[in-house]
Amino acid sequence: MSQPSPLSPLAALEPAGEFAARHIGPDAADERHMLSVIGVASRAALIDALVPRNIRRAAAMSLPPAASEAQALAELKRIAGNNRVLKSFIGQGYHGTLTPGVILRNVLENPAWYTAYTPYQAEISQGRMEALVNFQTMVTDLTGMAIANASMLDEATAAAEAMTLAQRVGKSKSDVFYVADDVLPQTLDVVRTRAKPLGITVQVGPAAQAGATPCFAALLQYPGVNGHVQALQPISDAVHAQGGLVIVAADLLALALLTPPGEQGADIACGTTQRFGMPMGAGGPHAAYLATRDEFKRSLPGRLVGVSVDAHGAPAYRLALQTREQHIRREKATSNICTAQVLPAVVASMYAVYHGPEGLKRIAKRVAAYTAVLAAGLAELGHALAHETAFDTLVVRCGERAEPLVAAAESLGMNLRRAKPGLVGITLDETTTRADIEALWQVFAGDRALPSFERCAAHAAPLLPTALQRGSAFLTHPVFNAHHSETEMLRYIRSLSDKDLALDRSMIPLGSCTMKLNATSEMIPITWPEFAQVHPYAPAAQLAGYAELNAQLCAWLAEATGYAGISLQPNAGSQGEYAGLLAIRAWHASRGETRRDVCLIPESAHGTNPASAQMVGLKVVPVKCDALGHVDMADLEAKCRAHADDLAAMMITYPSTYGVFETGVKDLCALVHRHGGRVYVDGANMNALVGVAAPGQFGGDVSHLNLHKTFCIPHGGGGPGVGPVCVVDDLVPFLPALPGHGSDAAVGAVSAAPLGNAAVLPISWMYIRMMGADGLQQATEVAILSANYVAARLADHYDIHFSSELAQMAGGGVAHECILDLRPLKDSSGIGAEDVAKRLIDYGFHAPTLSFPVAGTLMVEPTESEPRIELDRFCDAMIAIREEIRRVEQGQWPKDDNPLRNAPHTAEALLKAEWPHAYSREDAAFPLPALRRQKYWSPVGRVDNVYGDRNLFCSCVPMSAYED
Amino acid sequence: MSQPSPLSPLAALEPAGEFAARHIGPDAADERHMLSVIGVASRAALIDALVPRNIRRAAAMSLPPAASEAQALAELKRIAGNNRVLKSFIGQGYHGTLTPGVILRNVLENPAWYTAYTPYQAEISQGRMEALVNFQTMVTDLTGMAIANASMLDEATAAAEAMTLAQRVGKSKSDVFYVADDVLPQTLDVVRTRAKPLGITVQVGPAAQAGATPCFAALLQYPGVNGHVQALQPISDAVHAQGGLVIVAADLLALALLTPPGEQGADIACGTTQRFGMPMGAGGPHAAYLATRDEFKRSLPGRLVGVSVDAHGAPAYRLALQTREQHIRREKATSNICTAQVLPAVVASMYAVYHGPEGLKRIAKRVAAYTAVLAAGLAELGHALAHETAFDTLVVRCGERAEPLVAAAESLGMNLRRAKPGLVGITLDETTTRADIEALWQVFAGDRALPSFERCAAHAAPLLPTALQRGSAFLTHPVFNAHHSETEMLRYIRSLSDKDLALDRSMIPLGSCTMKLNATSEMIPITWPEFAQVHPYAPAAQLAGYAELNAQLCAWLAEATGYAGISLQPNAGSQGEYAGLLAIRAWHASRGETRRDVCLIPESAHGTNPASAQMVGLKVVPVKCDALGHVDMADLEAKCRAHADDLAAMMITYPSTYGVFETGVKDLCALVHRHGGRVYVDGANMNALVGVAAPGQFGGDVSHLNLHKTFCIPHGGGGPGVGPVCVVDDLVPFLPALPGHGSDAAVGAVSAAPLGNAAVLPISWMYIRMMGADGLQQATEVAILSANYVAARLADHYDIHFSSELAQMAGGGVAHECILDLRPLKDSSGIGAEDVAKRLIDYGFHAPTLSFPVAGTLMVEPTESEPRIELDRFCDAMIAIREEIRRVEQGQWPKDDNPLRNAPHTAEALLKAEWPHAYSREDAAFPLPALRRQKYWSPVGRVDNVYGDRNLFCSCVPMSAYED
Repeated sequence: MSQPSPLSPLAALEPAGEFAARHIGPDAADERHMLSVIGVASRAALIDALVPRNIRRAAAMSLPPAASEAQALAELKRIAGNNRVLKSFIGQGYHGTLTPGVILRNVLENPAWYTAYTPYQAEISQGRMEALVNFQTMVTDLTGMAIANASMLDEATAAAEAMTLAQRVGKSKSDVFYVADDVLPQTLDVVRTRAKPLGITVQVGPAAQAGATPCFAALLQYPGVNGHVQALQPISDAVHAQGGLVIVAADLLALALLTPPGEQGADIACGTTQRFGMPMGAGGPHAAYLATRDEFKRSLPGRLVGVSVDAHGAPAYRLALQTREQHIRREKATSNICTAQVLPAVVASMYAVYHGPEGLKRIAKRVAAYTAVLAAGLAELGHALAHETAFDTLVVRCGERAEPLVAAAESLGMNLRRAKPGLVGITLDETTTRADIEALWQVFAGDRALPSFERCAAHAAPLLPTALQRGSAFLTHPVFNAHHSETEMLRYIRSLSDKDLALDRSMIPLGSCTMKLNATSEMIPITWPEFAQVHPYAPAAQLAGYAELNAQLCAWLAEATGYAGISLQPNAGSQGEYAGLLAIRAWHASRGETRRDVCLIPESAHGTNPASAQMVGLKVVPVKCDALGHVDMADLEAKCRAHADDLAAMMITYPSTYGVFETGVKDLCALVHRHGGRVYVDGANMNALVGVAAPGQFGGDVSHLNLHKTFCIPHGGGGPGVGPVCVVDDLVPFLPALPGHGSDAAVGAVSAAPLGNAAVLPISWMYIRMMGADGLQQATEVAILSANYVAARLADHYDIHFSSELAQMAGGGVAHECILDLRPLKDSSGIGAEDVAKRLIDYGFHAPTLSFPVAGTLMVEPTESEPRIELDRFCDAMIAIREEIRRVEQGQWPKDDNPLRNAPHTAEALLKAEWPHAYSREDAAFPLPALRRQKYWSPVGRVDNVYGDRNLFCSCVPMSAYED
Repeated sequence: MSQPSPLSPLAALEPAGEFAARHIGPDAADERHMLSVIGVASRAALIDALVPRNIRRAAAMSLPPAASEAQALAELKRIAGNNRVLKSFIGQGYHGTLTPGVILRNVLENPAWYTAYTPYQAEISQGRMEALVNFQTMVTDLTGMAIANASMLDEATAAAEAMTLAQRVGKSKSDVFYVADDVLPQTLDVVRTRAKPLGITVQVGPAAQAGATPCFAALLQYPGVNGHVQALQPISDAVHAQGGLVIVAADLLALALLTPPGEQGADIACGTTQRFGMPMGAGGPHAAYLATRDEFKRSLPGRLVGVSVDAHGAPAYRLALQTREQHIRREKATSNICTAQVLPAVVASMYAVYHGPEGLKRIAKRVAAYTAVLAAGLAELGHALAHETAFDTLVVRCGERAEPLVAAAESLGMNLRRAKPGLVGITLDETTTRADIEALWQVFAGDRALPSFERCAAHAAPLLPTALQRGSAFLTHPVFNAHHSETEMLRYIRSLSDKDLALDRSMIPLGSCTMKLNATSEMIPITWPEFAQVHPYAPAAQLAGYAELNAQLCAWLAEATGYAGISLQPNAGSQGEYAGLLAIRAWHASRGETRRDVCLIPESAHGTNPASAQMVGLKVVPVKCDALGHVDMADLEAKCRAHADDLAAMMITYPSTYGVFETGVKDLCALVHRHGGRVYVDGANMNALVGVAAPGQFGGDVSHLNLHKTFCIPHGGGGPGVGPVCVVDDLVPFLPALPGHGSDAAVGAVSAAPLGNAAVLPISWMYIRMMGADGLQQATEVAILSANYVAARLADHYDIHFSSELAQMAGGGVAHECILDLRPLKDSSGIGAEDVAKRLIDYGFHAPTLSFPVAGTLMVEPTESEPRIELDRFCDAMIAIREEIRRVEQGQWPKDDNPLRNAPHTAEALLKAEWPHAYSREDAAFPLPALRRQKYWSPVGRVDNVYGDRNLFCSCVPMSAYED
């Protein structure tokens, strides 16, 4: 009989290893084919040829064996169950909110939104940019400011960015930053961290005293953390009189009822949009906002979406003022922000679209009314409140009874805030019900009779100051007034996502950005209530599940990187990088070497490296690179010698930003160490190392990781990211942390919540748990294999710009990405890299990374997740495009009128009655036969960036713009 | 101060009433506008004018006050918590399964799939029809049969349909239907219910004896319910020798390893596809399958998707052989099936696509191997098994210990099956783990030592008979072998859904089909584990949550309909209708009036009415209708008199299928009652009555409801449906039920599970709970308002075919839908209703109902959920189309070459170099300016139905068909 005995294959039949095969695109047969095209015998031989022997891991990673999707979900569910979901009245910047189901399912849980990339390619990002313009409009309307960016990482970092913005644009010579004493405490922590290396003096005092002494800016909270609602105008006037600027951290929901900061003299407004539909998630991810006066718009950090026109004169969105960003300005950049919180910003904007101005007012009025009723009942029960004004927050003077009351509330399933000794804070929100008010009264009643809700409602005095009642309209644009039924909202969400290309439709072959699979099983846990509905400052015992998740994930990441200690607090790669450099500075200081303030950075580095170095007060000294992008070791040695006394650190990226495994990396690290510096290994390309080499083992002292790149957190259209900072043993004490969460030597808080973007950490946990050590290593190797396959297939058609000197193989041997040099073609045909990028849209692709790290090139990173059929579809497209360029070179198509220069082609343009072009409509639309069966239509023609920057407009487009 | 005191508006600020405003599209301002266009002062006045006074409800419905979405979800979560989720080893046709996350999120929870309609409009349904062709191919490949339909309601009804199919196509004169005694018991129950009114004798006996006596067909289970795996060929030969046909109910997962029924002489195969990724859901919804020999294909009941060609000769899918269905054949139809289980069928087909043949084999082998290991351990523990062969099910001979063992297992969180006294069944499935096997051993070990898993695995003998090992390949088509990574699978799912129009993109104005909002909050609970992961035959105490849901929902539906008793068992409207007629027959029989076998049905009735009447053995006598579609009362009276002795029932639809509130309905009911008949009110149009009039109050004796129409269960592309049957007091004892679930007089089971499609009942529960009585009544009234608004806006452009004689208003006064008569235009322009329907696709719309109830017309039902802006977009499109027809009438465009005759236009056709048409490309693609900004592109040209029926092909299309 031919049926095998059940024994032998049983292990093979079990599902534990199945996930890796779902995550990794090419199967064994594909791999054989790809290796044969490259001309290498095996995947192992490929890795041996490419990765320097002296950095290879000695032992495989020690991780739990791979679990099946069902097993991992069950295990994580158990961990999640160790969190306790209590009703939160803590407030302090984090509020209960009702995520409308239509937004939850169709935005937050929809791959069309969460797998999208940052909208650098404007034409295929019109949907999410419309959502971000809605976000910007929502912020400017509610705050009364002139311009807002497309989100910040959290309220605390937004306040810190506001501080540095104010210092840049203000005229005051003062180095004092005045912070009102009722600002959120976590905001103060982050501001202090940021201020220190910049030499800014943080002075804390009563809001009303803000104008009493000189400062370059003052930060106010509106309403204050304890609920007090005060007029801002008198304070603004006083601060302005001292030459300072006024920054107001304001609650957007309160602004539906209160006179906004922009009408009370504020120069900058910032805050969170969390309560607009994003679950608390133990602190993140949420979109913060930053808004300012028109005159400061060109200094605003972060992403900014603006309206421009396309090649046909129609309105079209694109990222505005990109030239002010760190990837262009490098050493001159004043912020290192790369990612924003796009997905949470989209959620918040959709929340505003769905509720509209009247809906937001209704919610805000209900919160305010309940707060007044609660106050009336507390008064009836004999309790005194700390303030006479309030929107959603009361502080009760409890004296000795404070702790017992907080404990009693907890035992009834409610968390109150320990505001100060003797003071108990209660913050209401959208989710508050009558039953909650009554339960709160119960806590405070002691042996008294409970107040009557109806009676309190009848007699409660409003707590919002009449003088501060908002008079101005907001959200008047039609988009906020047309989508209030679920049917309309659903269609609006779908119509926007249909305009965009994300991973759910095609490959996004972005070099350095690693658009790998974001598996559903990884995404499912993030909206579990046990992870989503907990407050970051709930008692630690209630967050035991997060603590376990944190401990396991840090241990696994330490295993993958070879480092000794990790902090998950940084909520973006840029923040991890910043925190890592802070740790290096603090380590030097701890040894009395504060003089060490030079940071060596190769010319080929990411722009964030010099920007981060600036932010921690390091002087950037560039190191030369050779033509292959390798660090010039002679120059490095010279610089090390020259700075032997003041060398603090060197920052490198490995594999290099050129996608090459430099052979001398171990020597490089040793050289820096010999001169007293520490080595920062940028983790941007960690996905080419996991399981193969560990930076903590080959000489790195600090790295940050991009969990949203290497460890499967989706890009979300440009955030959330997570940027853990990883350090070797002697740097562990200097890891960042909120007060009470780290060592005494900690460099302070770098984000507002203990675990940063805590709620998305389950994604990386699931990925590692399901892949296991073998799966992760295989992923790395297949990523390298796929890049070399693409290089091999395209080598006859394009110059592969940089390739390893190590390997003799088709395509020349690259790491996990390859650079296609289009500069020669520009000379021969006039066709540039941008034309190719835009033409790829007609073929149904997001373009590779354009002109980074080398102008005039495309950098392709296929990742391990792309199936071979998609790699081939991409290569076929690139080869077809090369043939199109040849027709231009040969004069068949004019240099100024060909499908590349005119790309992307909209259906509307293609269907015009007149067709004056040298190429046919079908040449334009269906250059490959498969496109006839499946075609992505660009919603706009090529977007004019210059026009948009010259005519900066960053709010919703008036409907009239579409009429002609 | 202008701020209102918080008291007075507090109630208005609370969220309880908010859902109705999300569900109902038009807001107050829209309503005022719409009323002004109609020329009626108020909504109340409109309803007064249209709905006969003598049927209006005397009192509003008594329902719980509307809850907010959050409140309703919390309340339902509490109810769900009363279900207990144990690990199920019950089997008996329902198995644990792992729904791949990518399918769960992107099909089952995705409105692009679940809001789609039955694919009557082929061009905008290509995606889901491809999925259904995959389903059909999966079934034929696995069963080895020639042709399969696109799903049945459940395995039991599929077996019953197989029985009647066999009777129709077989040559035997026998009235005996032989059922093997190891068929699933619920299948036997449903078969018995179905057989009785048809005069079929059900004979139960051992499978091996099936050929011993004459029968027109025999039904076998493969493997048997107790796990035994026997060869079918000898039995087939014996049955065939007697002139009978062989029906095999087969487990699809087992068929991955076993020689399929089609290779062992089966004439028909049927079964469930539940374990291919659809959660057990307490019994449904799941897709069942029915497959047969090629020679019987034109007799196959249910939906069948076939491949045809479009106007350009490209392959295109459409529903095949529609002329055999009940809506065409009416009295001659032999099945009343309307809906299928499309959404679960899509899930099952995607599961097969994702796993592919090798993945299915791996799962099946694992299940079989674990079963063998379990058996080895049980033997080691001294237990005897009832059979020597098995795939996934063992029956243990336990004698007296059976009950204590089952109880012990339950206390450890496991449900076993009480197979027969002394016999305990254990069925494994895809979710079974080693730990489960060991836990099972624990239950059976008593005080013995537990077996070693490794040792049992090493020694266990395979239980699958070698002789029955499958030799033939299956799922060889590329679609089952290309989408095994999650990235590929995600893109495949998205690419299919992008081809289709569903409610998430535009209005589906289908008369009689009620495509209203399926709110996310309604959909969220259905995949909660407490509802999704329970077995229908788990002990009642574990299903307490479902019992509570059932009780509440029935009470609310009774309030809405005015009936005394309701059964939720029927899992489609057709089944409810069938059950209702059975109850009427049983009631007559209980009074000794079995002679009453005449059923009066108006000519205007749905085709299902006569088909259902036939199925219960009633003789259909048609009643005439006048030109307005009203029942001819004189003819009715004559028929009543003529059949005074044998009148059983009259079936009516109210409002009529013509969308009119007939004024004489109360008199009609009284007339039928006077002649001894009962009145069946088809609930198809209940959405025009809820809160306004109740059929149980104005004379109806029985109704079925379509929860998937009136009560928000989505259409799912053609199922699942739920068709509760509602009856007046004296008919309550005759409601259908599984044995032990209803009264002794119950007419038997009409579906396989106690609550039919139980898992989708939370949708209707949520809808009613969130709307409350006021919201539901408002929904009804706005549905009527919207229909009259459309009629009013189109009245100057089209003939509104039937309108009420009651009302003097623009549009003439209709109920909840209106009929546009296109027949005059056919004469003047040659343009027919189908041309208009297809042209609407170019405008981005699903067509209204075509040629029902009147040939040459379109019936429009906007529902209450469509916002006014969408109603206007639709009316604008219809008016623009009328102007296009005028250009044909006036000779500007030839009758045989105009945008209507050539619709829909594909992008490919529009971009051809040559454009020989009298109209422009832009006329074709962008007849209205808004289409330039948002355009749905039909993936195929007009589909040729005749070609497809002549060249019937119902499997996956060979890739070569696309190459030219």
